[in-house]
Amino acid sequence: MRRYAVEFIGTFFLVFTVGCAVLGRSPLAPLAIGAVLMVMVYAGGHISGGHYNPAVTLGVWIRGRIETVEAAGYWVAQLAAAVVAAFVADYVVNPRVVVQLAPSGRNLVAALIVEVLFTFALVYVVLNVATSKDHPDNSFYGLAIGFTVAAGAFAVGTISGAAFNPAVALGASIMELFAWSKIWLWLVADLAGGAAAGAAFLALNTDDRAAPAPAGHAPARN
Amino acid sequence: MRRYAVEFIGTFFLVFTVGCAVLGRSPLAPLAIGAVLMVMVYAGGHISGGHYNPAVTLGVWIRGRIETVEAAGYWVAQLAAAVVAAFVADYVVNPRVVVQLAPSGRNLVAALIVEVLFTFALVYVVLNVATSKDHPDNSFYGLAIGFTVAAGAFAVGTISGAAFNPAVALGASIMELFAWSKIWLWLVADLAGGAAAGAAFLALNTDDRAAPAPAGHAPARN
Amino acid sequence: MRRYAVEFIGTFFLVFTVGCAVLGRSPLAPLAIGAVLMVMVYAGGHISGGHYNPAVTLGVWIRGRIETVEAAGYWVAQLAAAVVAAFVADYVVNPRVVVQLAPSGRNLVAALIVEVLFTFALVYVVLNVATSKDHPDNSFYGLAIGFTVAAGAFAVGTISGAAFNPAVALGASIMELFAWSKIWLWLVADLAGGAAAGAAFLALNTDDRAAPAPAGHAPARN
Amino acid sequence: MRRYAVEFIGTFFLVFTVGCAVLGRSPLAPLAIGAVLMVMVYAGGHISGGHYNPAVTLGVWIRGRIETVEAAGYWVAQLAAAVVAAFVADYVVNPRVVVQLAPSGRNLVAALIVEVLFTFALVYVVLNVATSKDHPDNSFYGLAIGFTVAAGAFAVGTISGAAFNPAVALGASIMELFAWSKIWLWLVADLAGGAAAGAAFLALNTDDRAAPAPAGHAPARN
Repeated sequence: MRRYAVEFIGTFFLVFTVGCAVLGRSPLAPLAIGAVLMVMVYAGGHISGGHYNPAVTLGVWIRGRIETVEAAGYWVAQLAAAVVAAFVADYVVNPRVVVQLAPSGRNLVAALIVEVLFTFALVYVVLNVATSKDHPDNSFYGLAIGFTVAAGAFAVGTISGAAFNPAVALGASIMELFAWSKIWLWLVADLAGGAAAGAAFLALNTDDRAAPAPAGHAPARN
Repeated sequence: MRRYAVEFIGTFFLVFTVGCAVLGRSPLAPLAIGAVLMVMVYAGGHISGGHYNPAVTLGVWIRGRIETVEAAGYWVAQLAAAVVAAFVADYVVNPRVVVQLAPSGRNLVAALIVEVLFTFALVYVVLNVATSKDHPDNSFYGLAIGFTVAAGAFAVGTISGAAFNPAVALGASIMELFAWSKIWLWLVADLAGGAAAGAAFLALNTDDRAAPAPAGHAPARN
Repeated sequence: MRRYAVEFIGTFFLVFTVGCAVLGRSPLAPLAIGAVLMVMVYAGGHISGGHYNPAVTLGVWIRGRIETVEAAGYWVAQLAAAVVAAFVADYVVNPRVVVQLAPSGRNLVAALIVEVLFTFALVYVVLNVATSKDHPDNSFYGLAIGFTVAAGAFAVGTISGAAFNPAVALGASIMELFAWSKIWLWLVADLAGGAAAGAAFLALNTDDRAAPAPAGHAPARN
Repeated sequence: MRRYAVEFIGTFFLVFTVGCAVLGRSPLAPLAIGAVLMVMVYAGGHISGGHYNPAVTLGVWIRGRIETVEAAGYWVAQLAAAVVAAFVADYVVNPRVVVQLAPSGRNLVAALIVEVLFTFALVYVVLNVATSKDHPDNSFYGLAIGFTVAAGAFAVGTISGAAFNPAVALGASIMELFAWSKIWLWLVADLAGGAAAGAAFLALNTDDRAAPAPAGHAPARN
């Protein structure tokens, strides 16, 4: 139960920061978003693993470090937090300026490509820095995870909105930053990117296929 | 006594940086403020715990890691440092440009909400990265703490001024950045957020309720 | 084989981020590029060493930490990744704005100087933070490597385009950011800077000349 | 001898980055400068301690961690590197835009205050993160040191130019960023701030007065 609470808190602050920074048109929104993800990973990683993202949970599940039932609970907590955060951000940013993203045609293909690629990068980074046997007590995992999102948001924010996270896509749709008619784009692309990263990790780390942590045991960072 | 000196030094540079960066209208003020908090936490954490914030001291006291008398001393050192820093910053930034924040009505509610939320986030991060038994010798605690403030300042700086700290609110009021008539907003919201984070840590970490460090013993980071 | 895959992935995301951020004219492109290099070094360092740069591989080879045959494989993977990334970035950034760099005369000399200097700095940092015997389990190696490129890109980006990496120069030429007629500038300068750093490391660390890792053994970070 | 070479290399890149970023009017010059200091501290710290600043060397000497003769050698290497870097930066940045700083009257007093304060902060951070017995193998020392300068440069760059370092002041004067008639301001203020920090460290860490490292022994970070 405490793991779901930590996932809720972390995803809430991630989506709330996305909402406030983007609705408020902060030019450094990517840095704010990367930083808040980093700090929530450092704060909650020792309890829940600090996913805050259904695509990460999917990749971790494929890699074999979370039970199926628990992964479902993580998804529920993450999506619920995104909904609450979106409504709170919507309330506090006033007046808010919305430029809704609804890519079509060539722009839709481009958005799909960059969402798949950077979600792959994000989950590839997560699995390597936070679940590899090669550096179990490192201090850089949160920095690496947060700044993957910051780099992606600076690079492709204008192409796809830089969600890399179905919960962020849900929150962004509630805040009218993404068109509801296109939300499948982010859901499909981000879960595909996360799944591909899980498979890539297993292929590249054949000597590191740990059994799932036993139920009821809180893994430090997974 | 040396702990109070370290709290004074750290809070002084935090409020002084807030003052210079905001009065001088630096567009990257949030980064400057997050960075100076980070470096002062790394520099002084091994002596005083590196609070520099009465809301953090309150959360640490609720979590049971500082004695009541010592916490009172921390508050005095932090508030005194904020007063001195505000006067020095006011002197050195010349000409200074002041846009005073005095939220009312809906904006006041929004400011209260974001101050409670991000002060909660800050103290939640502090307690988890710097007082948890799960990663006692990590190197990321200052980075996480400093960049929580940077993320919050980028996200909600235009809504509440992004104090997240009663000492910063006091200094900002002296520098005329916050209206004196509204200072209760920050004092109430920030202490409430810090207290809530202390309670949340205890609820989420039932296996980690350490006894207070004995009087006269300098805890490494708490 | 998995090391070449990791070099491909890391170099792909480096050049893809360069392409998207620069073609899309992000003012914070240097931060995006430094961040993505940092995160890929943290993610892949434990498998391939995280070079993503033929000049780094050259420096590591001179320092005696990679076999000649393997170094050739790294170069192939890095250059192939740069080609693919350039074409993908070219496709997704639409419309793209290109200001092609083709320095001549005094500007060419200046570009040569700054490319040699900052590539020297980059490889000097890599060899010291990731291959020295003095801090084998540090958590800062990716931060140091990534932010060397960020600092250089902020400082001399307008002079030389801040490649510091023959693979980046190749990708930038494909994307028409660098003139093909001048690509020798970056290839010569960057390999010269990397070689000089390898020699400097050996001269400054006479007590740290490790034998090459045996073939078939995956060195953690080299 | 190798320590002086490392001090030369690190100070060269610090002053070269200052020159290129400031002469080229990069709005993120403070970030570039903080980042290059950070990476050079991580790269060279294990050999020379990574001072790159006569005020730091003075503070470390007062704290008792460097021999007098060696400290003099450090000063020579640092000042020589600053001279060379200034001339190279002056050459490569073309056209360059110079706004010379020559504070007088009230502005001179303000500049003196902020240079003393932030050089104190810088050396206080250096001594605590890199020479304290309390966290000998931390990975954050370079991050803390570099971002002290970044924070200070964002906060007071328009007041004093944010040198916090006599070698930077010398290089800035050669590049005509600082008026030669005022160079005493930075030399006096920065050495005073560094000396005060050395004294403060000894007063606050009475249990941590290590004997100087024996001559001929390379201290890891001091």
